[in-house]
Amino acid sequence: MRPERDSLGDVEVPADRYWGAQTQRALGNFPIGTERMPLPLIHALGVQKLAAARANLALGNLDRELGEAISVAAREVAEGRLDDHFPLPVWQSGSGTQTNMNANEVIANRANEWLGQPLGRRAPVHPNDHVNRSQSSNDTLPTVMHLATLSELRHRLHPALDGLRQRLAEQAEALAGQVKAGRTHLQDAVPVTLGQEFGGHAAQVAAAASRLGRLEADLLPLAQGGTAVGSGLNCPPGFVPRFLAEVRALSGFEVSRAPNHFAANAAHDVFVDLSGALGGLAAALTKIAGDIRFLACGPRCGIGELALPANEPGSSIMPGKVNPTQVEALLMVCAQVAGNHGAVMAGAAGGQLELNACKPVILHNVLGSIRLLADAAASFAERCVAGLEPIESRLRELSEGSLMLVTALAPALGYDRAAEAAQRAARDGTTLRRAVLDLGLLEGAEYDRLVDPRALAAGGGAD
Amino acid sequence: MRPERDSLGDVEVPADRYWGAQTQRALGNFPIGTERMPLPLIHALGVQKLAAARANLALGNLDRELGEAISVAAREVAEGRLDDHFPLPVWQSGSGTQTNMNANEVIANRANEWLGQPLGRRAPVHPNDHVNRSQSSNDTLPTVMHLATLSELRHRLHPALDGLRQRLAEQAEALAGQVKAGRTHLQDAVPVTLGQEFGGHAAQVAAAASRLGRLEADLLPLAQGGTAVGSGLNCPPGFVPRFLAEVRALSGFEVSRAPNHFAANAAHDVFVDLSGALGGLAAALTKIAGDIRFLACGPRCGIGELALPANEPGSSIMPGKVNPTQVEALLMVCAQVAGNHGAVMAGAAGGQLELNACKPVILHNVLGSIRLLADAAASFAERCVAGLEPIESRLRELSEGSLMLVTALAPALGYDRAAEAAQRAARDGTTLRRAVLDLGLLEGAEYDRLVDPRALAAGGGAD
Amino acid sequence: MRPERDSLGDVEVPADRYWGAQTQRALGNFPIGTERMPLPLIHALGVQKLAAARANLALGNLDRELGEAISVAAREVAEGRLDDHFPLPVWQSGSGTQTNMNANEVIANRANEWLGQPLGRRAPVHPNDHVNRSQSSNDTLPTVMHLATLSELRHRLHPALDGLRQRLAEQAEALAGQVKAGRTHLQDAVPVTLGQEFGGHAAQVAAAASRLGRLEADLLPLAQGGTAVGSGLNCPPGFVPRFLAEVRALSGFEVSRAPNHFAANAAHDVFVDLSGALGGLAAALTKIAGDIRFLACGPRCGIGELALPANEPGSSIMPGKVNPTQVEALLMVCAQVAGNHGAVMAGAAGGQLELNACKPVILHNVLGSIRLLADAAASFAERCVAGLEPIESRLRELSEGSLMLVTALAPALGYDRAAEAAQRAARDGTTLRRAVLDLGLLEGAEYDRLVDPRALAAGGGAD
Amino acid sequence: MRPERDSLGDVEVPADRYWGAQTQRALGNFPIGTERMPLPLIHALGVQKLAAARANLALGNLDRELGEAISVAAREVAEGRLDDHFPLPVWQSGSGTQTNMNANEVIANRANEWLGQPLGRRAPVHPNDHVNRSQSSNDTLPTVMHLATLSELRHRLHPALDGLRQRLAEQAEALAGQVKAGRTHLQDAVPVTLGQEFGGHAAQVAAAASRLGRLEADLLPLAQGGTAVGSGLNCPPGFVPRFLAEVRALSGFEVSRAPNHFAANAAHDVFVDLSGALGGLAAALTKIAGDIRFLACGPRCGIGELALPANEPGSSIMPGKVNPTQVEALLMVCAQVAGNHGAVMAGAAGGQLELNACKPVILHNVLGSIRLLADAAASFAERCVAGLEPIESRLRELSEGSLMLVTALAPALGYDRAAEAAQRAARDGTTLRRAVLDLGLLEGAEYDRLVDPRALAAGGGAD
Repeated sequence: MRPERDSLGDVEVPADRYWGAQTQRALGNFPIGTERMPLPLIHALGVQKLAAARANLALGNLDRELGEAISVAAREVAEGRLDDHFPLPVWQSGSGTQTNMNANEVIANRANEWLGQPLGRRAPVHPNDHVNRSQSSNDTLPTVMHLATLSELRHRLHPALDGLRQRLAEQAEALAGQVKAGRTHLQDAVPVTLGQEFGGHAAQVAAAASRLGRLEADLLPLAQGGTAVGSGLNCPPGFVPRFLAEVRALSGFEVSRAPNHFAANAAHDVFVDLSGALGGLAAALTKIAGDIRFLACGPRCGIGELALPANEPGSSIMPGKVNPTQVEALLMVCAQVAGNHGAVMAGAAGGQLELNACKPVILHNVLGSIRLLADAAASFAERCVAGLEPIESRLRELSEGSLMLVTALAPALGYDRAAEAAQRAARDGTTLRRAVLDLGLLEGAEYDRLVDPRALAAGGGAD
Repeated sequence: MRPERDSLGDVEVPADRYWGAQTQRALGNFPIGTERMPLPLIHALGVQKLAAARANLALGNLDRELGEAISVAAREVAEGRLDDHFPLPVWQSGSGTQTNMNANEVIANRANEWLGQPLGRRAPVHPNDHVNRSQSSNDTLPTVMHLATLSELRHRLHPALDGLRQRLAEQAEALAGQVKAGRTHLQDAVPVTLGQEFGGHAAQVAAAASRLGRLEADLLPLAQGGTAVGSGLNCPPGFVPRFLAEVRALSGFEVSRAPNHFAANAAHDVFVDLSGALGGLAAALTKIAGDIRFLACGPRCGIGELALPANEPGSSIMPGKVNPTQVEALLMVCAQVAGNHGAVMAGAAGGQLELNACKPVILHNVLGSIRLLADAAASFAERCVAGLEPIESRLRELSEGSLMLVTALAPALGYDRAAEAAQRAARDGTTLRRAVLDLGLLEGAEYDRLVDPRALAAGGGAD
Repeated sequence: MRPERDSLGDVEVPADRYWGAQTQRALGNFPIGTERMPLPLIHALGVQKLAAARANLALGNLDRELGEAISVAAREVAEGRLDDHFPLPVWQSGSGTQTNMNANEVIANRANEWLGQPLGRRAPVHPNDHVNRSQSSNDTLPTVMHLATLSELRHRLHPALDGLRQRLAEQAEALAGQVKAGRTHLQDAVPVTLGQEFGGHAAQVAAAASRLGRLEADLLPLAQGGTAVGSGLNCPPGFVPRFLAEVRALSGFEVSRAPNHFAANAAHDVFVDLSGALGGLAAALTKIAGDIRFLACGPRCGIGELALPANEPGSSIMPGKVNPTQVEALLMVCAQVAGNHGAVMAGAAGGQLELNACKPVILHNVLGSIRLLADAAASFAERCVAGLEPIESRLRELSEGSLMLVTALAPALGYDRAAEAAQRAARDGTTLRRAVLDLGLLEGAEYDRLVDPRALAAGGGAD
Repeated sequence: MRPERDSLGDVEVPADRYWGAQTQRALGNFPIGTERMPLPLIHALGVQKLAAARANLALGNLDRELGEAISVAAREVAEGRLDDHFPLPVWQSGSGTQTNMNANEVIANRANEWLGQPLGRRAPVHPNDHVNRSQSSNDTLPTVMHLATLSELRHRLHPALDGLRQRLAEQAEALAGQVKAGRTHLQDAVPVTLGQEFGGHAAQVAAAASRLGRLEADLLPLAQGGTAVGSGLNCPPGFVPRFLAEVRALSGFEVSRAPNHFAANAAHDVFVDLSGALGGLAAALTKIAGDIRFLACGPRCGIGELALPANEPGSSIMPGKVNPTQVEALLMVCAQVAGNHGAVMAGAAGGQLELNACKPVILHNVLGSIRLLADAAASFAERCVAGLEPIESRLRELSEGSLMLVTALAPALGYDRAAEAAQRAARDGTTLRRAVLDLGLLEGAEYDRLVDPRALAAGGGAD
């Protein structure tokens, strides 16, 4: 252990940790739950502290030697090399002040070490006066919330969705010729193809990804420069443009200055929209997963139109069982995303005057949803969608008996007489063809011309 | 009463109502709750039936006389002149089939009446064969859900938000000179102005409105033409382009064809995103309303920085009380919007194969949220924001005592010595100036130069 | 129109309405949405005002003639005879003050009329001084929220749930002999009977009703007597016991005094629990409805184990279609209940110091959920459950092919060899019996003794 | 690494881990998120496997030597000594089959090791045939969900709530004499004492704890014995009673047999009620935390009636700041609990036929909410409530100026004249006493007799 100090006095800290007194106090003050501040946020703090140090250097607002040492340490944070030095829980100050100070302390100590000094001295690099220079937790946290979320969307979620869309599109193409019974209300309807169903799924994923992509624009404006209350007190002229340029260079994101710093510190409404769009994606994935589970219901006592890949033994008591486990994992993830939204909404509505003090819970849930959706979508794509096989005999058997082929006769016969034919076939347990002929509504050849499942699946209205 | 019939047989219907057998059956089959299908949906059905009739006419797919009669009747539905003939509850078939048939029946009867025929004959205009020609409930309902929502966003919500933003911006300008104590974590912080606070509020509203506006693009692609399962069966070539042209002419919305009709019938994911964005707006309004309630807390025993307009006696037992009732109404609306989102999410996740059969509950909640937010925002703007008055003496009194003015000294003194000064003033119950001078940290003149609330509110970082 | 006045001055009111100035102001001040304060609350206000008048009379705290007139008028409110005189929206003061004053004004005017006086004079009966005597909105509203909810639970929800449970239990008994394929993960599992499935459903409904019944105990303690802030200021000694006795006599509910009046005015946490239990019921109903929709999937291209009653034509384009519309209405109701919970939660969390000022939104959603669940459960019981028919041929066909009958062999063969037999049958497309015999695992007679679907459905473990 | 096998073939497993092939497959198949199956569930699985082994032994259904070895290993799981051997994520099969097999595999390997055999042989103890004997994942998981939740409620949440209630009650007693301004709608109201406010808080916590305690009864009935589908196939007569007796002995919970095994496997509705009640607690804690934050708003520019303990430096930029960080951590926890409920609701509604396949997500959220509420309540009690100090000068200053003292005059003067006095004092900026005397409504002595803040806080209605 070594002593560290802050404005309230001395604290003992483990000797091999870079954090300081405030982090150590927070460990003692917030023994709550198991959830730690998400690593993408920590890495974004590394980027932010690096960009701030460079901006301060460029403005002559920071001694060169100290600034370089800070830059070295901040880069290590950004690269994930100091993750073990960020032990704090989500459940802390609502401004994330303890985590901002955790970063300030780790970087100060690591920088002092790099300068050949012992840990714990807060000199020559001081966590507040130098690492946090020109900044406040209140503008820093919103900034890194945006940066971390942008990164997770771009580098984690979008690749996963692209992969899933691709797998669905491949199945749509491969199964384009598989005519089958359509179902609305889970009741027999006019024919479609398996390819059309997977094509609809691929379209849902593509649309959800597109809507999410559009929201990135709302994360590009950054709060940095507003400092404690939005007025920018203690942030020198020239800092913000230079900071933004550095972030652009480091992250590749076309970040800009928040149009209103008071709102940027105190409101995170955009995360509600974003979480809502993650919910739109979850709705799409729930529908897709449920369809596949339904069509694979079987193998012998259900629908049985699709065969699932056998990834694992399905049951501890029923030998030989194969279950739609990837579907279930994905559906549970979607349930969690729906829940997470409630926490985001409650957190976002919790701003007061110059600060929203629910930042960690907002970010925990948004990043949690992104991570879960990305991982589950990728797993579902590779371990379920890619391995699905059509059961052709079953597809044919089920599609040919449908009474809803009668729909094709409605334009010719009128709705009421067509309904009569379908009702008669149902009542008598005969085929639709038999009923139509028995009622004298059509000749057999005319019936066969009008009622061809393959043609019906191809539909009309193609223009 | 008069007899009406459908494919299941005869039903008695009130003689002065245009609806038919299926609507009457639905009244008996769904005696659930008090919520009726929303009127904007009914009006959009009028537009849709009119556009469909015109498209069928243009294609020679409908007898001219019948088509004209249908057009007359559909226009009356669109204009809200037949609202009393749409009695069905939200809680019906998940496809909204009963409401589509309600429209088909009302239009058929009204068209037949216009043609000089009695009601109830289903001739010469037949509800399914003519009014519903080339359509299914399954593509019609998604189409009118989009049209109704577009209309409510454009014509109801956006004007209300513009009005609120304007009122907030006016206060921001009027109160730009009112320096006051800033507050973060509800604890004293560095100074701001009342104008800055209202400016932040105006920025939140503007941003939420902008995000909502962007989502309209997702509602422009329409499902019409997919008919029962998305394949377009029974929808003739040429129908869709002509239908879209008619809708554009009637509504002014630049509608287009859905890129994938299977997804368009079976998935309403975009409503989750939209509801999420309404939630983002609700989060903003919750923050704004809460701030005003907080600043108006008083008049004598609280913060008392703002005076509320006295719209009504506030208490049945405490004479002379004025309460923030507009704030409370708005906050309750925002709570409802958060709840409505859960219903939208559950409904949107409920699609199966070729159909999402939760359409009415999705629309009920989305249109409900739009209506409530629009009405409450407008009322709040006019009956609360516009009438707020600053209490200047109180603003001055509170802002001058703040120990957080010390922040302005941190760059000069360093964080640790600045903290010592603030702690000393707090402990001794003296002013910050006294503590700084007693500690020998600064001369009085230097202190006064650095610590000027008005200058501090103007901040730094202005570049 | 006639003039009415309150402490802010004069207001014009429609001549044929009993309400007064404050109600009229509220109509103008809260033009928000279409939702009105729920009628069960209005009727409970009648009971509460009647009980308060009687208590005041008994204590000699109210002139006898005035008290009798108030009693006559309050009873009319309680009996629903003055519903048209309660026009106010949910979205008003969060204390419901406008609705309490609406009741005070209606009762005062009606009482004055009964005494032969003109409306609008506030004499001899005054809305605040006499009708509201010994009360505040802040203890009255919580009181009537409890009373209205108790009444709706007891008189609306429980009868509906009893009916549904009964219908499910009847089907469980009628279908006890129908052996069928069990399904877990929607994959073939060991056999069950249709009766067992409906028996599980009945058990779910019974358990949910029992949990809800237990919560009534939390609604019996009433806030009345706390007046404005919980201290009971202006409520005379003896009022509360007498009030409670009157309410017991009028309502039949064993109401008691809230153990802590400060909490009773300012916290409505119990409504969150109650809404949560309504959600537990909704989860049960969602499962039950989904099962029936699944088993009725067909009639020819799906599972087809159950036949739905044909309540209405199912499709505007597909003649002869029958859809699970009662299932869908119920599922949409359950989605709404899930959403309503979010609004209740937000409202209940919104208390501040001596008052929760989100009372109307809490009650609107709790009573809304109760009404919807009761109506939908009753309709579903009568129009769906009662009319379901088993398709015996289909039940037999599907249950006999199941490979999961292998489970019965696992105790004899061990899990691994049993799995081998099932996998072989699946791979070869043969029966399980064939595979077991081919692998030389059992003799045919032994197989037949161990694998009897009817016996397997009867299970083991019966002790 | 060593080879392990299951019914699908061989898998390589780390040599120092007890798990087997199915666990290893699951690690590969579910690379989703960071959330692992909660440890209380793992420990409950130890109890369940131990009780099952003992029951099998008692029935002569398991070789004695194998049974003893299983018992040794299961006890180690129950005691948390093998936690590192349970690596699986929440996001897996919805039945939790992988985690049940994880337990079966770990116990089998550890038992075989105890018997002097190498790992990986599945002999003499076999994970399915012996450890899982008489059980299925489908009855085991619901059983351990109940046991784990009971344990976390009893041993974690209730002690924390008792502690918090105690701290609040201590403050209520200590502050009973501190008269202060009451506030409703955050507007000045009649006086109360700080003790009354804390007493209301204590009452809220006590009531929420009581409601939660009552729900434990719903967790005592266990699913064990239903095996795969509820029919009890392969579970021998006598197993269930003996199993229950063993669980009672091991856990101290008065567990019983589920009244309906089909519902017990397929429905977890009670977790929705439980999560709802956790939400009721969260609503209470949100109110309490918010009140304290509000009253501590200051120290110099706000309400300032309470002083917060200074646990840490509050700001990285504003030296000397103290923030309500325990309040904020608790409020964020409550936001998370609100969100978790949505996931529980979605999971509970997801049952289909013989199985609810959303078990892990339900449990993850329920146990997550319990853990967070317990930890945050305990921390808030000790680090915030216990250290709050009244600021007596401020309490007095604010309470004496209130115009709402006029309420005490309303019975004597009537509501309308009392309102006139309050309005006049407000308009003229004078005291209420001045206005009453100026209006000639009362003599000074009479005023002073009627308007005594301390007496008003004591209220009336004390009977």
